[in-house]
Amino acid sequence: MNLPQRITIVEVGPRDGLQSEKKTLPTETKVRLIERLAAAGLGVVEATSFVSATAVPQLADADEVLRRLRRKTGVRYPVLVPNEKGLERAMAAGATEIAVFGSASDAYSRKNLGHTREEALEMFRPVVRRAKDSGMFVRGYLSMVIADPWDGPTPVVLAVDAGRRMLDLGCDELSLGDTVGAGTPVTVDRLVRGFLAADITPDRLAVHLHDTHHQALANVLTVLGLGITTIDASVAGLGGSTVVSDPHGNLATEDLVFFCDGSGIETGVSLAALLDTATWLRGELGR
Amino acid sequence: MNLPQRITIVEVGPRDGLQSEKKTLPTETKVRLIERLAAAGLGVVEATSFVSATAVPQLADADEVLRRLRRKTGVRYPVLVPNEKGLERAMAAGATEIAVFGSASDAYSRKNLGHTREEALEMFRPVVRRAKDSGMFVRGYLSMVIADPWDGPTPVVLAVDAGRRMLDLGCDELSLGDTVGAGTPVTVDRLVRGFLAADITPDRLAVHLHDTHHQALANVLTVLGLGITTIDASVAGLGGSTVVSDPHGNLATEDLVFFCDGSGIETGVSLAALLDTATWLRGELGR
Repeated sequence: MNLPQRITIVEVGPRDGLQSEKKTLPTETKVRLIERLAAAGLGVVEATSFVSATAVPQLADADEVLRRLRRKTGVRYPVLVPNEKGLERAMAAGATEIAVFGSASDAYSRKNLGHTREEALEMFRPVVRRAKDSGMFVRGYLSMVIADPWDGPTPVVLAVDAGRRMLDLGCDELSLGDTVGAGTPVTVDRLVRGFLAADITPDRLAVHLHDTHHQALANVLTVLGLGITTIDASVAGLGGSTVVSDPHGNLATEDLVFFCDGSGIETGVSLAALLDTATWLRGELGR
Repeated sequence: MNLPQRITIVEVGPRDGLQSEKKTLPTETKVRLIERLAAAGLGVVEATSFVSATAVPQLADADEVLRRLRRKTGVRYPVLVPNEKGLERAMAAGATEIAVFGSASDAYSRKNLGHTREEALEMFRPVVRRAKDSGMFVRGYLSMVIADPWDGPTPVVLAVDAGRRMLDLGCDELSLGDTVGAGTPVTVDRLVRGFLAADITPDRLAVHLHDTHHQALANVLTVLGLGITTIDASVAGLGGSTVVSDPHGNLATEDLVFFCDGSGIETGVSLAALLDTATWLRGELGR
């Protein structure tokens, strides 16, 4: 089988997961979660989000989380920033990597970001420039790459165009988000081939898959075969979509690690430590 | 992608699903379930099991279920039989297809069937012969093909040997059961290639996957690429393993149909009708 020797998992639970939980965890528990994930062997842990506390009250303590965090050598801790104000807060709190968030579809951009697709992409320009000028690694999330609950299927050409623009703005990496879990191997294959045909190499791409219909790992298998080796995942599968019913949330990190362990693909992660962390986290969330 | 135009789904919910539920459904509800699944477009619906009522009280009314069933033209309704007595009951109730059940591993055979692997396989000889003499299609289930909770990983050579013997006894089709959901694309690929190398053609093989770690559809994608086009699935994912913790049960038929619909693979099944049936069934089971 055409599989890589090693993949990089981008753990998004502390940000993408916790932001959609009803219960807000204490700052110390969030810090503990990030530290446990790093201790389990995850090399990239998205730590929090510097959005407004009104929009996402669950992560209102982003500054404090980042300040209290005891960083593990070699581990990267990106944070989400929506705008220049968020970037300033993130930098003041010691962030060294950021992620920005755009949409391949217009309806979701308007509903989730409050701006048209075009406006939202343009808003990132000064944020990305300043981050890059400060020597930061910048990740771009592109959501609704397969389908949008209002606009329907996303044409590959639209997704590639939006992604191309995020990369042109200066993003180092583009994470393709199937935000509603609509993708199947054939549609995901078509999407990724669209990017490759536009000369966007797989080392600049990641995927961010929701497991709404349990297609996530079949889709991971598909993208690994196309050369993508950066996969987003969320401990305990936390992080259902906020716009559609999504009881199964993000691809669970433990399912991805099980997949890799059983396929001879290195992740650096201890499945046992990760499962312990998932169990502990469910307890903290009262699940 | 190397995918078939069409697959055959073997719906196992009314048998493999209901046998592991705590709640026993009324006979009329079981009949209604089978009829709804056939009406949704499933062409093969495993209807019940003629095991002893002591072993599986949930399906003690197998005779009655089969007698009351209004059969849809063109749909096949296999039933599980463990021994000659079960076969007699099944035939008396009007069964025209049966399935027998063996294990690739010894420990599971002893615990689940009460016989060594060798004895259990030998027990099927008269059952399969009589069924074949009566012109019945006979399916053989082979469980624990990837790993066994007590014996550990199942060597491919052992699984192929057990499968070879079930086919030699007269089974028309062999369903490879990853009963604990331990398989990943690489281990499933290795297993199926073992069968192909033993000159067992993919048209005689099916897979029966548990979604314990959500690997099922990635494994389906793998076997489709190897030419297998018969896939077992269970409506609402019913049918957790009775021997290991398995909260996610069998591969859910609706997840498989979503996968096929999104990949241009015909199943003949209406996803909407199937989802309605799954919702109704959860209600009947008090889930």
